[in-house]
Amino acid sequence: MDKSRFLQQLDFIYEMDKVKHIVRKTKLFDGSRLENDAEHSWTICLMAVLFREYSNEQIDIGKVLMMLLIHDIVEIDAGDTFLYAPDRETAHWKEQAAAERIFGILPEEQSKGFLAAWEEFEARVTTEAKFASVFDRLEPVLQNYKNGGETWKKNGITKQMVLEKNKHLGEGSVEIWYFFLELIDMCVQKGYLEDR
Amino acid sequence: MDKSRFLQQLDFIYEMDKVKHIVRKTKLFDGSRLENDAEHSWTICLMAVLFREYSNEQIDIGKVLMMLLIHDIVEIDAGDTFLYAPDRETAHWKEQAAAERIFGILPEEQSKGFLAAWEEFEARVTTEAKFASVFDRLEPVLQNYKNGGETWKKNGITKQMVLEKNKHLGEGSVEIWYFFLELIDMCVQKGYLEDR
Repeated sequence: MDKSRFLQQLDFIYEMDKVKHIVRKTKLFDGSRLENDAEHSWTICLMAVLFREYSNEQIDIGKVLMMLLIHDIVEIDAGDTFLYAPDRETAHWKEQAAAERIFGILPEEQSKGFLAAWEEFEARVTTEAKFASVFDRLEPVLQNYKNGGETWKKNGITKQMVLEKNKHLGEGSVEIWYFFLELIDMCVQKGYLEDR
Repeated sequence: MDKSRFLQQLDFIYEMDKVKHIVRKTKLFDGSRLENDAEHSWTICLMAVLFREYSNEQIDIGKVLMMLLIHDIVEIDAGDTFLYAPDRETAHWKEQAAAERIFGILPEEQSKGFLAAWEEFEARVTTEAKFASVFDRLEPVLQNYKNGGETWKKNGITKQMVLEKNKHLGEGSVEIWYFFLELIDMCVQKGYLEDR
């Protein structure tokens, strides 16, 4: 073992503590409190394992999980931006700078590998990135469904906004996309989501 | 998609909320508060990805991650048992019953697969289980190192107890085991751990 390399890798793990302090916009399924980014990441990793049978194509689950584990750590610097916020584009550039700083803590070749995985997730071009994205988007919708649309109501979110922002889900899983559409309609019927 | 199957799988995901309420015995690296099981699981998954180069043998990282994602969910029923608690053996039987109930929420063949992965992790016989266990044990030791041995001091933990409980780590990674031994000695020198 190259000790200084290992210590450098450990510094990255210590930095990860901050992810546990990043509070998201949606509450846990039980509505008790807002979820943090570490909990969110763990939950959607588990969803990807559980729901892999619904992937449109064969996937490398190890690659999907690696992307989901790290997808939100850029929020250490960039903060959590609400999916429906108007400054979502600006957020992306802040996140790119954050990715460079945070993955830069790692030894150089490992830093490049992690940065590449993060960029792959963001670009949603590969099969694994498309499938991984399904769970990043499905979880908060399920949380809103379980919590009476609390976050949606507070922010005046409409059915069209949800469909527009999540319309790529079918590229990862057509089956889950059809379920998603039904779920959105149920949320509209229950008055959790504005019908426009 | 078999809708009733999917809804059954979703029930399992809703149950996972409870993992976020299970408070562990050690604090975050920054010492601000105790960690919960979801945060712990996410952290050690990330460690397994980051440190896979130190595995004694070739591993299937997807399998390692699956085990780490689910290894603690039995604590929903069984609670978190301190590694050094005298009733650790009793805890194992409670955890087995918990695994059967919780994985039993899933469709039958999936339930069997998850239960088998959990049992594989517990048994620590396969290459993947041995490697996965390294991070489950290393994280709280690093947390104690960063937090002045707070949990150890409160519970009268000695160097020999730590070595005895973690002596299998070399089966997953000889390199990390040597680092672990150095770390324990540093903790003794700093007075975080009793030298006996």
